[in-house]
Amino acid sequence: MSYDLIIIGAGTAGISAYTAAKRQTDNLLIINDGPWDTTCARVGCMPSKVLIASANQYHDAKNLSKVGIQAELQADLSGVLPRVREYRDRFTSGMQKTVDGWKAEHKINGKARFINHNTVEVNGQQYQAKAFIIAVGTTPRPNDEWQQAIGDRLLTTDTIFELEQLPSSIAVIGSGAISTELALALNQLGVETTVFSRGKNIANATSPKIQELINTALQPQLNVLFETTPESFELKDNQVQVHFNQGDEKKSIAVDYVLNATGRVSLLDGLALDQIDPSYDDIKSLPINEYTKQLADRPIFIVGDAHTTTPVQHEASNEGKIAVKNVFSYPEVKQGKDLAPLSIVFSSPEIALVGQSYQQLKDNNIDFEVGFASYESQGRATVLGKNVGGIEVYVDKASQVFLGAEIFVTDGEHLAHLLAWILNQKPTISDILSQPFYHPTLEEGVRTAFRDVKYKLKSS
Amino acid sequence: MSYDLIIIGAGTAGISAYTAAKRQTDNLLIINDGPWDTTCARVGCMPSKVLIASANQYHDAKNLSKVGIQAELQADLSGVLPRVREYRDRFTSGMQKTVDGWKAEHKINGKARFINHNTVEVNGQQYQAKAFIIAVGTTPRPNDEWQQAIGDRLLTTDTIFELEQLPSSIAVIGSGAISTELALALNQLGVETTVFSRGKNIANATSPKIQELINTALQPQLNVLFETTPESFELKDNQVQVHFNQGDEKKSIAVDYVLNATGRVSLLDGLALDQIDPSYDDIKSLPINEYTKQLADRPIFIVGDAHTTTPVQHEASNEGKIAVKNVFSYPEVKQGKDLAPLSIVFSSPEIALVGQSYQQLKDNNIDFEVGFASYESQGRATVLGKNVGGIEVYVDKASQVFLGAEIFVTDGEHLAHLLAWILNQKPTISDILSQPFYHPTLEEGVRTAFRDVKYKLKSS
Repeated sequence: MSYDLIIIGAGTAGISAYTAAKRQTDNLLIINDGPWDTTCARVGCMPSKVLIASANQYHDAKNLSKVGIQAELQADLSGVLPRVREYRDRFTSGMQKTVDGWKAEHKINGKARFINHNTVEVNGQQYQAKAFIIAVGTTPRPNDEWQQAIGDRLLTTDTIFELEQLPSSIAVIGSGAISTELALALNQLGVETTVFSRGKNIANATSPKIQELINTALQPQLNVLFETTPESFELKDNQVQVHFNQGDEKKSIAVDYVLNATGRVSLLDGLALDQIDPSYDDIKSLPINEYTKQLADRPIFIVGDAHTTTPVQHEASNEGKIAVKNVFSYPEVKQGKDLAPLSIVFSSPEIALVGQSYQQLKDNNIDFEVGFASYESQGRATVLGKNVGGIEVYVDKASQVFLGAEIFVTDGEHLAHLLAWILNQKPTISDILSQPFYHPTLEEGVRTAFRDVKYKLKSS
Repeated sequence: MSYDLIIIGAGTAGISAYTAAKRQTDNLLIINDGPWDTTCARVGCMPSKVLIASANQYHDAKNLSKVGIQAELQADLSGVLPRVREYRDRFTSGMQKTVDGWKAEHKINGKARFINHNTVEVNGQQYQAKAFIIAVGTTPRPNDEWQQAIGDRLLTTDTIFELEQLPSSIAVIGSGAISTELALALNQLGVETTVFSRGKNIANATSPKIQELINTALQPQLNVLFETTPESFELKDNQVQVHFNQGDEKKSIAVDYVLNATGRVSLLDGLALDQIDPSYDDIKSLPINEYTKQLADRPIFIVGDAHTTTPVQHEASNEGKIAVKNVFSYPEVKQGKDLAPLSIVFSSPEIALVGQSYQQLKDNNIDFEVGFASYESQGRATVLGKNVGGIEVYVDKASQVFLGAEIFVTDGEHLAHLLAWILNQKPTISDILSQPFYHPTLEEGVRTAFRDVKYKLKSS
């Protein structure tokens, strides 16, 4: 017997694909290894946002002097991590319920391996299908050496939310989006943080000016050691000693825990894709179409975080749906509607990228102009006591069409949606300046940035 | 000598008009009675937003248990009103600086009265012009009887920010947008509030469902007495006794102050417009074009709050600019670019209207369907401990085009901008559902509302 479709992986992309596919056929199978919920709900977006909500509000409460209130705060933070787990469980059990509603004969627990282009093996049994959607996701990059040295003092995003209590201190290895969110939240909650960064930047902005604003605001809070990686770890006096070099100097710090946030690795490796085609043994060079996620010209689609440069939930979910459309129209394969690129780091202030980033525009040799607005004295931001950062908008010089933005502003997630939703309309500067900007709002800073780029283009 | 243009009033609309006009001519005059700054900066949007920022953050700090933190807060609120005045002064002095930069011969202090269609008199001297822009704004509705009864215990928005300290209790007369903002902020700062409402609703939503959500959430906080107006006031024991009837029962409460927030009245009345045309003696029935703000077919434009149903700053500013264009193209008079209607009440949660309201759609006999999303268990709102309210979106039944929305959601100001910015593109439900909705955000509730209306239109 051959299934119409086998989906491998029941995370965000897999669940989205299954939901779409069961409207098309009952002859399908979904195979999953591990919990039947999502990285996002279990160890990703959701628990981190719960932690960040507590951290931000605690931080604001400690800084009421910014809004004219002298206050003393006595706080018991022992409920913070239990609340994270309570909500996490609520979100994952919601998903569990969805999955429980699926037909038992559609679901298999276990690790899939390809036998050939139309056959996988799970728990010793073989299953054939006309098409596959592969949505196996990622896992935190393991580090056996570190693990051996300090055991359960080495945390990843899989384990950090399981801590009974907030530690006193933590070393965070990596300064990408996830580590920035977590380190900042922990820091706001009184955890002493030290962040080790291979490079010179915090999070994912690419514009030198926005990067500088981010570094200036966040480095002192997070104690980021730039261009510094740990040499070794050892357990000593019930703490972890982190040894590292700064210049020629050997240094050490003692911390309660180490969070390995050096990135995530794809789980495609375990699927034996080389059994489909020997050339697929290197998952980094798979012939996957960037837009349709199709593997070569096969009825096989690799969606979600397993193979992407933009591991964000709404794109994974969208890819799952589009793959199902293409599975059932195969060999006709179409690109889905273009989603405006949008990424958000839930730091404070928030960091967001919309459309093409500064670096992408440079790499693509686009002739663009930059509009900038500082939020250091922006009206509403000042009133809120959150007047930090700024926004850059990028505009095509010839057509004056809006191309992208980099944002480091309080509530930046909303400004990012605003700009992402108009991006595909290809608005000009003048189109954007004729939108309503209510007073007094953070959105008025967006107007300042577009006025700035308008002025620059006039003067040039 | 005849000026090219005389502008009467130097508030938001007048300043905007002057700035635009001086690029066209040096032969102009601006006449102003009172301070050369704006209602918005001195007694409106700005000081209220400063107060609200303190109130919201203090309120959050007192309610940290919503985010898993048990805390005790000792706060000194004596700095709150001084901070309001400090920022208010900063904003108004910024404007003063702008006005100081204008040529002395362009500016006259004093009260203008029309003598005929092209002549005004100020301080006993007459000035003629080819065109007029009238931007005299509004003032809080006076009430002599109340004033006589309780003197300086009767506050308006002109005087409330001058209080040395926060009172213990206040009665707020009126339950419109401004009184809702102020009463809620005062209440969050520990002031005992009683709000007298002539009608059955708080603030300006028109949808029965959104109104009900607002009433349910805010009535208990604000202690709103619906369909109740005060009968009389008297000073007694250093407090104000407010006498009123509820049903057949006579009742009284004692409060420190009374805020008269029963609305604002236009300052057009003092201009002697009947000297232009005798039929202009009733300012309520002036023949003003809704879109161009032109008075009949004359080179006279009445802009800003002086004559509007939507007294919002960005529209006043926009009207000032458009009037100048029309003054200099007269007799050709064009409508400016349509701004999507957008109004925001900065309560918590915030209330916002975008496009056509529920009531306007009903009044215009539009055949529309309603999509609703509750935020009571919306993901991000729940995580933030701010899961209150909801959003309605209105869609044309035949074309499925988005027409308007009413919003009562935390950070609703941002959702309102998002929807206002796409409104004039006339997007369909499917256009909106194919926009990026980042996870987890408050924007995802907008998707829920559009999915709801999509489902209803499919089923019908």
